[in-house]
Amino acid sequence: MTFTIQQALIPVDDGYANVDVQIQDNAIAAIDANLEVVGTAVDGKNKLLLPGFVNAHTHSSEMWQRGLIPPVPLELWIAELYDFTPLEPDQVYLSALGTAVETLLSGGTSVVDHLVLIPGKEIETIAAAVRAYKEIGICAFIGPLIQDETLTRGIPTGGKETEHEAYIRSTEATLALMQEAVDKFHNPAEGVYVLVAPTGIQLCSDALFQGCIELSDHYNLCRHAHLLETKAQQFLAQEKYGCSAVEHLKRIGYLSPRTSLAHCVHLSDADIEILAETQSTVVHNPLSNLRLGSGIAPILKYLQAGVNVSFGCDGAASNDSQDLLEAIKIGSILHNITDLDYHHWITPRQSVEIAAFGGAKGLNLADEMGSLAVDKKADLVLYDLTSLSLLPRTDPIGLLILGRPAQAVDSVWVNGKRIVADGKVTTINVEDLRKELFERSEWATNRQSKTLGEIEAHYRSVMGLPEGVKKGYS
Amino acid sequence: MTFTIQQALIPVDDGYANVDVQIQDNAIAAIDANLEVVGTAVDGKNKLLLPGFVNAHTHSSEMWQRGLIPPVPLELWIAELYDFTPLEPDQVYLSALGTAVETLLSGGTSVVDHLVLIPGKEIETIAAAVRAYKEIGICAFIGPLIQDETLTRGIPTGGKETEHEAYIRSTEATLALMQEAVDKFHNPAEGVYVLVAPTGIQLCSDALFQGCIELSDHYNLCRHAHLLETKAQQFLAQEKYGCSAVEHLKRIGYLSPRTSLAHCVHLSDADIEILAETQSTVVHNPLSNLRLGSGIAPILKYLQAGVNVSFGCDGAASNDSQDLLEAIKIGSILHNITDLDYHHWITPRQSVEIAAFGGAKGLNLADEMGSLAVDKKADLVLYDLTSLSLLPRTDPIGLLILGRPAQAVDSVWVNGKRIVADGKVTTINVEDLRKELFERSEWATNRQSKTLGEIEAHYRSVMGLPEGVKKGYS
Repeated sequence: MTFTIQQALIPVDDGYANVDVQIQDNAIAAIDANLEVVGTAVDGKNKLLLPGFVNAHTHSSEMWQRGLIPPVPLELWIAELYDFTPLEPDQVYLSALGTAVETLLSGGTSVVDHLVLIPGKEIETIAAAVRAYKEIGICAFIGPLIQDETLTRGIPTGGKETEHEAYIRSTEATLALMQEAVDKFHNPAEGVYVLVAPTGIQLCSDALFQGCIELSDHYNLCRHAHLLETKAQQFLAQEKYGCSAVEHLKRIGYLSPRTSLAHCVHLSDADIEILAETQSTVVHNPLSNLRLGSGIAPILKYLQAGVNVSFGCDGAASNDSQDLLEAIKIGSILHNITDLDYHHWITPRQSVEIAAFGGAKGLNLADEMGSLAVDKKADLVLYDLTSLSLLPRTDPIGLLILGRPAQAVDSVWVNGKRIVADGKVTTINVEDLRKELFERSEWATNRQSKTLGEIEAHYRSVMGLPEGVKKGYS
Repeated sequence: MTFTIQQALIPVDDGYANVDVQIQDNAIAAIDANLEVVGTAVDGKNKLLLPGFVNAHTHSSEMWQRGLIPPVPLELWIAELYDFTPLEPDQVYLSALGTAVETLLSGGTSVVDHLVLIPGKEIETIAAAVRAYKEIGICAFIGPLIQDETLTRGIPTGGKETEHEAYIRSTEATLALMQEAVDKFHNPAEGVYVLVAPTGIQLCSDALFQGCIELSDHYNLCRHAHLLETKAQQFLAQEKYGCSAVEHLKRIGYLSPRTSLAHCVHLSDADIEILAETQSTVVHNPLSNLRLGSGIAPILKYLQAGVNVSFGCDGAASNDSQDLLEAIKIGSILHNITDLDYHHWITPRQSVEIAAFGGAKGLNLADEMGSLAVDKKADLVLYDLTSLSLLPRTDPIGLLILGRPAQAVDSVWVNGKRIVADGKVTTINVEDLRKELFERSEWATNRQSKTLGEIEAHYRSVMGLPEGVKKGYS
């Protein structure tokens, strides 16, 4: 695609500049004050041009349960989530589209989908998500969510012997499945990347991690996982390994410059040093960390230690949205209460850097995307600075990051292709999507999760909470 | 106004009900499954009907500086704010309209405007805000922001003798101004209430509080103030009174069932008991408390102690938005990280109760508004449950509160008058407002606040921060 964005505002060292941007062969060819128009001319007047952001951790099919799970911590929340998880690849297709629409309309051009697989229809699940992302045109990083231990193992035993059922799929079968997923779907040239993404130390054996490392090395795949999202997982790591989860992951070789780790809430200073040293990336999911009561990830410490950070929405059942600008705002201002010295606080320009460049770096693509620079892929977002939510005119990036932009995204290009124009997604029929989501769902309350009921008493006891089960959370 | 909303979803004890709602003489006349249509019929199908929320603390004219002030704590932030505060009543009129539009389109029907007064044009400032609120039709509670001590007194001395300039207006002149404001503008029948609203203990003498108490008693006015927003204010109260700010306010008689107090971040358990005992209301402003690094107000403790709580956006220069649903979401989930026992966490239905009924109670109007009940004022909001941001269909209130609703407000009635229909404000021309805000402003960065520069070194020393001034925060 060849086009020229004219007279857009871009951030420069000492403020903003009005520039023209030429895009040729899907990449940024030139950025300067007065360039000749190549290809189509796009009016950038009164608009802010930024590199596309990365929604660096989500689970698209959770959209089917957003707004529904009561306020409970992760270990109980996930029990309810899995009791009611969607079972049809068609649903996965629709929620991937929905996730992509919300990500695009809040400044994202890439999405990392830690994709929950339908048991027995694993490849169909991935195929459905791939189809959705290719249709809409967002750059997709799909990490099939795998594990080889059953859900109840994710809760510390507290020293109590507990029986667990075997997981539905063996380690070998799971790795074979990953091999098939890579063979079938990993296709960077078409904007679809497969990641290895064992869910985390709480439900995965070392053998599973090892198999993923081998795949990652063989195919140059990025590595992803949840890491120390909750206090319970911190306890569990000690029970399981006798050391911190980070030390264990380092020992088995999972940490690397192409490893991104979602959450990272409960890390010690020594753990942080390990992340810095291994050049791993922390994906900050501030909203789900609040919603599930997980805590505040020590992001200012990560930044000071030189650890790369990016932002994610996390799945829509623990957020319960896919608005990336909301995650960026809260993920930036939240940390001001963790450090009295405001010289360490994240500025709006730093937030943009984390969301775009930090995201790219976490996917091992810092050379290709994440900033407005010649030769980089044209993953671009144009924000309409005449939106009421961005007025009066003050500092455009301050308004975008600290405000609550409404309908502010005018255009989005992914790999040089315009997939949002005049604030509307052009590649799919969003009205049809809306109707489908409406028709395939119903307003519901007071559903009861069997598993949550079964494990709550044990969870409360292990976590030192008083006995007693609350009836109905809504 | 007489009308009937047909087949709207409302929350009931065991879920939701589809009901008709008759409104007569600006009040709710009947709510039932099948009512005859009185007056105009309004289609409520696939829509959720809730009582209007209260934006229980804001400063409307801060809109002129949103997105602009760097991430610094309150005491420095306010120095910059006042260095660049708008000086024309016309600007106050426009930002009051802007504040009202954003509040209405995020579920609010009432706004408490702790209004910064233009020096020398105090009555014109109030008149401008009143004109805006009456034109747009939102229910307005205007607390002219008064003080009788100069800004530098708001920072603890740390034992150091400091010279302060006299404040620009005497205590007597300020109270005379308040008397004039009450005489001219307090008009509940027209939806305009004047509040007494000394800014807080950090900048007000006891004589000013006393004068406000007398006015409040004489005219039955609500009382408002900031309270213990920052750690610096906690130190200052000890320096000034030798006791906590709450103890002092109780002693001088400022606390009462019609007193609402913004922030309340740094209160002890004994302070919380005093708020409960005096039936005062806490206004929770979660976003500015994060943005300014003030801390997390102990809202779960307030609720457990039986203290009434409401939600506010706070001014748009410390948030930097007026989206009430955003403040409600963050103000609800934020507390999950403060208490391991999730049985105490705020549920989405509790959030609605706090936002509507808590808001009404804090304004001493719990008998008139804040819930869907016969004889209450028709302050109503109808949400479009077919908005993509509220799909797939799950729990409507869960989606509204925990999600990120976009263009979800279909209609708003204030005192029975419809002022939003089909998602658009009907009483003013929002397009003209947008143009005015655009034309009267310019994109700016790197402005330097003189006062901030002057006080930063002292602030850092008193707060125990290392020496050193950061150049340029953006």
